Amino acid sequence: MLINNLSIIGIGLIGGSLARALRARGQVKYITAYDTCEKSLKKALDLNIIDNYSLDVKESVCDADVLVIATPISTTEKILPQITEALSKNTIVTDVGSVKGSIVKVAREVMGENFPNFVPGHPIAGTEQSGFEASFAELFVDHIVILTPLSETSSSANKLISRMWELIGAKIIYIDVSYHDKTLAATSHLPHMLAYLLVDCLSKMEAREDVFKYAAGGFSDFTRIASSNPEMWHDICIANSKALINVLDMFSCHVEKIRKAIYEKDSKSLLDIFQNAKQTRDKFIMTKNKLNTTKE
Amino acid sequence: MLINNLSIIGIGLIGGSLARALRARGQVKYITAYDTCEKSLKKALDLNIIDNYSLDVKESVCDADVLVIATPISTTEKILPQITEALSKNTIVTDVGSVKGSIVKVAREVMGENFPNFVPGHPIAGTEQSGFEASFAELFVDHIVILTPLSETSSSANKLISRMWELIGAKIIYIDVSYHDKTLAATSHLPHMLAYLLVDCLSKMEAREDVFKYAAGGFSDFTRIASSNPEMWHDICIANSKALINVLDMFSCHVEKIRKAIYEKDSKSLLDIFQNAKQTRDKFIMTKNKLNTTKE
Repeated sequence: MLINNLSIIGIGLIGGSLARALRARGQVKYITAYDTCEKSLKKALDLNIIDNYSLDVKESVCDADVLVIATPISTTEKILPQITEALSKNTIVTDVGSVKGSIVKVAREVMGENFPNFVPGHPIAGTEQSGFEASFAELFVDHIVILTPLSETSSSANKLISRMWELIGAKIIYIDVSYHDKTLAATSHLPHMLAYLLVDCLSKMEAREDVFKYAAGGFSDFTRIASSNPEMWHDICIANSKALINVLDMFSCHVEKIRKAIYEKDSKSLLDIFQNAKQTRDKFIMTKNKLNTTKE
Repeated sequence: MLINNLSIIGIGLIGGSLARALRARGQVKYITAYDTCEKSLKKALDLNIIDNYSLDVKESVCDADVLVIATPISTTEKILPQITEALSKNTIVTDVGSVKGSIVKVAREVMGENFPNFVPGHPIAGTEQSGFEASFAELFVDHIVILTPLSETSSSANKLISRMWELIGAKIIYIDVSYHDKTLAATSHLPHMLAYLLVDCLSKMEAREDVFKYAAGGFSDFTRIASSNPEMWHDICIANSKALINVLDMFSCHVEKIRKAIYEKDSKSLLDIFQNAKQTRDKFIMTKNKLNTTKE
């Protein structure tokens, strides 16, 4: 068994799925949870996914060997200063935020000499659903978890958190904090912005009823991520504003490029864009499928 | 049986699926096909999906009671002038192009007094695959087919083409040519541009390997339509350039709006966009699911 006392702050999609997965694999003895939604805590307790809960965030973490903070970024940044005094100096702390720079900054400020116990983490897993009801034990299987340890981070803390994710099926990748935030701005934050913007934009058209009525299968898939949690994405925008603005500007240049090509009926440029995109995307899917097949 | 002699030009995803569906439901006696890919024609013949084929486009249409042109837009516009002389004056002609204005213009010019036999059509169905190999008989079930008859269009021709699609499970909607092109620019052409542009844009980043490596499930769905046929989408851009540029400009304004909100850390505007998009998209999916349940 990997962990004796685990505390989880936030028993939503990610925290709930983590608790379910560790319990199912028998890798944790005792789980204490904190959440602002008591209904979710009670449900998790009834299902034996957690062993105890507290509505006092400090109380929920005081016996923890490992603490996972699984809340939206702004909440994580608010909670960290509140709990540091209640933590034992051996408690290993990790989080699941989609942006790492801003959380690392707060953790470094408030954790003081215990900062080496903090392992910044980001599981690349989730659905457009949120909340405990949406959680499931297999969420992390075959998914990547990015850890962005700092030079100060204790290697034993790092190893324990890596092991925790690996034991529930995830694959660990270590990268630098700012590289994480730049790369995720492109691969995750930008597509979410585009999906949100597209739906928002179409909903304001005069012909909006018909626009949605005539939408085909592609549209459902394309906009799935626009059903994601608005508060969570608000926090990501604020926390990763600089990198996100950079990729938005890069994208706008590409929009300008295709606009020009369409206006000038420039067949070569249009075909170049579409062919390159198709080849790249087909290769991406092939690599992804190959990885999955190799694993089976 | 609805049709005695059916000719299909282009036995790809749409033409192939139409032939399979009509044959499966026993609604056509004899199918003749034309395609530039003889392999596809032979395969269709071997599978008894068609009864005959010709590599001469005029020959392929001369006995047709109904002719369906199921090629990319620019090919349809090239083929129409070539075949009009070979058509009998009773042959009812329809097409499947994603843009209607430019095809209607060509048809009106070349069909002369037989123009009332032309029923412009657009099945809102398809996958990111293309070609005969990707075709299947159920493609149109529970999908919309938009018909955009003109004031000149014969009502019997219109009825026959409607019936043809209805008998294979589709639902017919009649709208005006220019309304079709404007609405589809928003609901279909714009999302395809965004998906293509996103993948093209990311493929040009320095960190492109990692960008694709760290992509989650949302990314596969979001970019699925970027695997669509480049030639087909090139033709759509050229044929619907005006409407497409309008929606691209509308979208760019929205990008500018969110860029400003992120830059100014304007929480209210960000939450407004995300919440409106989520509500709209959730409602869209609920309506879609309800329609499907009612049908069962």
